[in-house]
Amino acid sequence: MNKDLAKERQSSVLRVQELNSFIGRNLFLSDERYKQVLDLKSVLASRIKSLYDENYENLERGQKYELVLKKSLELIEFASEHNVTNYMEYTYLIGEVMGTEKHLFGLHFTMFTISLELWSTPEQKAYWDRFLKENGVFGTYIQTEIGHGTFIRGLETTATYDRNAEEFILDSPTLTSIKFWPGASGKTCNYAIVMAKLIIDGKDHGIHAFVVQLRSLENHSPVPGIELGDIGKKHAYEAIDNGFVKFKNVRIPRNNMLMRFAQVLPNGEFKRLGNEIVMYACMLIMRGILCMFASLLQSISTTIAIRYSCVRRQTADPTGLEPQIIDYQTQQYRLLPGLATSYANFFATIYFRNILNSFRKRSKNFSEIETNELAKLHALSSGIKAIVFDECLKFGQINRLCCGGHGYSASSGLQPVIQEADAGCTYEGDNIVLYLQTARYLLKAVQKGFSPHLELDNLQQIEKSDLFKRFEKYILLFRNLYESQIGEISNRMFILIEEEKLDRFEAWNSSSVALIYINLFIVYMNLNGIYEHQKSECSENQVILEELFELYLSYGIVEKFPNHFLKLGLIDGNQMTDHQNRLYELLKKVRVNAVCLVDAFGWTDSNLASSLGVYDGNVYEKLFQFAKSSLFNQNSENPVFNKVARPYILAKSKL
Amino acid sequence: MNKDLAKERQSSVLRVQELNSFIGRNLFLSDERYKQVLDLKSVLASRIKSLYDENYENLERGQKYELVLKKSLELIEFASEHNVTNYMEYTYLIGEVMGTEKHLFGLHFTMFTISLELWSTPEQKAYWDRFLKENGVFGTYIQTEIGHGTFIRGLETTATYDRNAEEFILDSPTLTSIKFWPGASGKTCNYAIVMAKLIIDGKDHGIHAFVVQLRSLENHSPVPGIELGDIGKKHAYEAIDNGFVKFKNVRIPRNNMLMRFAQVLPNGEFKRLGNEIVMYACMLIMRGILCMFASLLQSISTTIAIRYSCVRRQTADPTGLEPQIIDYQTQQYRLLPGLATSYANFFATIYFRNILNSFRKRSKNFSEIETNELAKLHALSSGIKAIVFDECLKFGQINRLCCGGHGYSASSGLQPVIQEADAGCTYEGDNIVLYLQTARYLLKAVQKGFSPHLELDNLQQIEKSDLFKRFEKYILLFRNLYESQIGEISNRMFILIEEEKLDRFEAWNSSSVALIYINLFIVYMNLNGIYEHQKSECSENQVILEELFELYLSYGIVEKFPNHFLKLGLIDGNQMTDHQNRLYELLKKVRVNAVCLVDAFGWTDSNLASSLGVYDGNVYEKLFQFAKSSLFNQNSENPVFNKVARPYILAKSKL
Repeated sequence: MNKDLAKERQSSVLRVQELNSFIGRNLFLSDERYKQVLDLKSVLASRIKSLYDENYENLERGQKYELVLKKSLELIEFASEHNVTNYMEYTYLIGEVMGTEKHLFGLHFTMFTISLELWSTPEQKAYWDRFLKENGVFGTYIQTEIGHGTFIRGLETTATYDRNAEEFILDSPTLTSIKFWPGASGKTCNYAIVMAKLIIDGKDHGIHAFVVQLRSLENHSPVPGIELGDIGKKHAYEAIDNGFVKFKNVRIPRNNMLMRFAQVLPNGEFKRLGNEIVMYACMLIMRGILCMFASLLQSISTTIAIRYSCVRRQTADPTGLEPQIIDYQTQQYRLLPGLATSYANFFATIYFRNILNSFRKRSKNFSEIETNELAKLHALSSGIKAIVFDECLKFGQINRLCCGGHGYSASSGLQPVIQEADAGCTYEGDNIVLYLQTARYLLKAVQKGFSPHLELDNLQQIEKSDLFKRFEKYILLFRNLYESQIGEISNRMFILIEEEKLDRFEAWNSSSVALIYINLFIVYMNLNGIYEHQKSECSENQVILEELFELYLSYGIVEKFPNHFLKLGLIDGNQMTDHQNRLYELLKKVRVNAVCLVDAFGWTDSNLASSLGVYDGNVYEKLFQFAKSSLFNQNSENPVFNKVARPYILAKSKL
Repeated sequence: MNKDLAKERQSSVLRVQELNSFIGRNLFLSDERYKQVLDLKSVLASRIKSLYDENYENLERGQKYELVLKKSLELIEFASEHNVTNYMEYTYLIGEVMGTEKHLFGLHFTMFTISLELWSTPEQKAYWDRFLKENGVFGTYIQTEIGHGTFIRGLETTATYDRNAEEFILDSPTLTSIKFWPGASGKTCNYAIVMAKLIIDGKDHGIHAFVVQLRSLENHSPVPGIELGDIGKKHAYEAIDNGFVKFKNVRIPRNNMLMRFAQVLPNGEFKRLGNEIVMYACMLIMRGILCMFASLLQSISTTIAIRYSCVRRQTADPTGLEPQIIDYQTQQYRLLPGLATSYANFFATIYFRNILNSFRKRSKNFSEIETNELAKLHALSSGIKAIVFDECLKFGQINRLCCGGHGYSASSGLQPVIQEADAGCTYEGDNIVLYLQTARYLLKAVQKGFSPHLELDNLQQIEKSDLFKRFEKYILLFRNLYESQIGEISNRMFILIEEEKLDRFEAWNSSSVALIYINLFIVYMNLNGIYEHQKSECSENQVILEELFELYLSYGIVEKFPNHFLKLGLIDGNQMTDHQNRLYELLKKVRVNAVCLVDAFGWTDSNLASSLGVYDGNVYEKLFQFAKSSLFNQNSENPVFNKVARPYILAKSKL
């Protein structure tokens, strides 16, 4: 164990085990289930070698694909053997093998399976359940086209009904209509849900879902009429074959359209059915889980950067010693707000998931939910998704810079975190579009006079607590900020434009309302988390979590929204200076417990997949080991150099 | 030509050719030389195929290395054939072949050659000049160690003098002393300048430079006693073999120490000589060039994102048409300040290079420069380097997000720009350390009562001009901001601490002074650029450049420093609202000329190496072509899948 890290762990009073249990209990809803998941995790660790131990980051793309395919299948087997069916648990376990890399069949277990389940009629569901069980189906979900992303109504792929054959004819009429990006569709999956525009007798009936076979179940060759392949390298996800798919009059049976919400009868008659709202609910659930993972992802880059900042020493102080870089204020100012944000976003996403679950229960799987409740949840989920990924990206990048040169090595493990966050700002709804959706909802709420706020079940209790009193000053500031800001913007909007044109005018300005609102929500959820934590009766941890929360609040005032606070007159210049000074004090306090606070997330070395973040702090050994494992070092000579550069050298030496 | 891009070009009154000439004249110091460089660039384009045309981004690392090695040698030949010796011109030309990728021998032509030239005695210089000419030497510069980066005095590698043999013994005594990161040192270079701690008779004489052979000139095998290799994958630079080098008592002749500033006599006597200041000057020149390239790099990501934002249409407006996404205010708010910053930073770095050159001339290659002048230049160069790379990274990332999903494809060309900027925030001085150095200089200046500002030769003229009057209000705001801020911080510092402990206390706060100061410098340089541009007598372009400049200024007030302006009372809430409104107006104005403004940078498709940024706007064709060129598509089947997944599928279908 590295001495500096050992000292950090000794000198903090944080009870890591207790805090970790609290986190686990919240993630998996009970202590028992968390313990079971941890047990499964260690069985898994002993059974399947992690990518981190396979020199994964040094491999070439083809090798990565093969390895990830292998591990993905082993993980499916493991899950089935141990009856892990909960997606959240499954994904958590996967991290022990995959680190921060993606499972190859992620879409199979999410979008493919969920849409089959939610959008099929009961008969179709029974059929596909059985079909999936009896065949080696690997499914994906195909929606985005080369020229069409955000705007689903703009999709060009057609599914034209042929009444005589009782078949749909799938076609990609243009270059821009070629399906592009779906995960594992290029080389791996053999089935897909394909979103296409339904045409009957020349009439456009909108976008619907169709089950389409892509490749043979016998020999994996593409189905005739389908041209498909990998889309080439991306900023990350080297092992995943995101694909393109081009249909040339491909025929599928009528029954391959998923018909729970709309039906095409054999004679070509089109009928809308049931409550489409459930389709949105599916998106809500996905987003709830996604945000939770993004907050955990941020805790991973934070763990790496904080541990390494304790191990790394740089630049002599007056005594000639090189201090741990975490002792520099500039380093604390960049690292520790990221730590506070990791916890805050974790609390926010956990409790948002709980809120969703309770709505789901109360409304019979959302089928009886009221439209305005759904709108509220949708606005909230959009904003949370956007902010959590934005912050994961922002602090991931900061953490990379905090790790200096070595942070740039693929062995740092930071790149996959940053790249996942970066992609996450675009996928499942472009963040800017999401902020605007939230903003539009908030403006509508203020104009029509209804409250956008969710009522927490325990809000009244919380507001009576001592805890609340300790933070009341801050919380009122953030609440006032939101109210002043929405008031100001709402007035401007009213004068400037009708609602429809909102996204063209003052859009940027209004999106800051969404930011502030979601921040207020996170503040409340963080408070709620600490309130819940009181039940643990672990006073050491309670104090530390409160310091961390105050850091989150101070940082919000001083760095996130200082201009809004000042502009609206909620804080004057002198008060801002006081907040700054308080922030500096809090950095010193939080710094003392920083290592234990990241330890409490409980990430294993395989989870982190990082030379810089290893638990024992033997960073330089790991870095050097990674270097030696470079594929370029398989030969101590350099045959390529001799082949390519030798003639040049010979020519030179003849001069 | 894509219709939307054609329309953009038709509807703008900007005279692209004229603006491009102005840029080129500034880069290469005369119209004639710019024309010559352009001519050379087209000869080069016809002679050597660019990486962009070689499917580079889809290749595996080994293939990339081989290709880049080949191109690098061809480029060296080309430069020697056409007598291109100016580094700036060479690097500019290289872009036509390499796009935004690095030449494999970048360090050979910079740090290796420059340090040999500046740190050698005249006899050593003559010797090495000849040696380099007659041998196929590829040199690199080896300084950083696995445990030591920023703090040069902390380096552990020793060069111990053996008086009897008249040799130095190079050794890596610890794991942390292993040299790590130097470019092309792992597998490619055969010589290096190695920085090591000189030890004579057990006494430490500090860090000095030694010429060390790494590999045989005959067969490229490592020199005995040197263990070296590639350090493995990084976030970028796949083709470059950044290396590790471990010395085990490697002997080199006494004369291989570069002795211009310090000598070791045969008997072991140590003598300091000459004016070490020239060593810093070398760093200044390097930084001057580096910053210029970073500003150009930003113009590349801006070109890509702006062109694609005109081609891409998304989400129907009330009329049912999908608008060009550049027409969304949120998109303009993210894209166009980046464009304004590209120009502002270009002007700033160009004129800073000119200032450096004139100092160089006046002071006989810096040898007669006064220490306080050097300190001023150093503070300025540190801050500019930090801010230009920070902004290149920030806007590069924003540009990627502005390009949506396709921005994430390796074919977008955005990743190398972002990754270069990211690395650049660490290399050649960690940005945070640089900001603090600038801040420390500024605080010293205010305390000792001297002005930190550079006097522009033509400042008086500029201040009398109409141009100045048009921008006076803004410029005074920024100047007042700097002065109020430095005053405030200086007072706090004076009360709080003695100067030595500055980097431990309030460091973050003081670094914002550096940011504001450098921003003020950029404002002046931008003004200077527009003042110089008046001589072109191209009134259309003049108006457009002034709009762009005003956008830069407005953005600075509203987005970069609003909290500082408000906190110090330089702007009140209502005035801030006015600035915001003005910013929205300016976005609309600049949007009209955005495409022509990026066209004026004159980047070819090979320079950009981007499917999304192609001049003709045929974006989707390029994207699809890139997809089809994925190495995963060489076989329409998937043998790996059949090997790995077939047994799983068979097992399933037996159930």
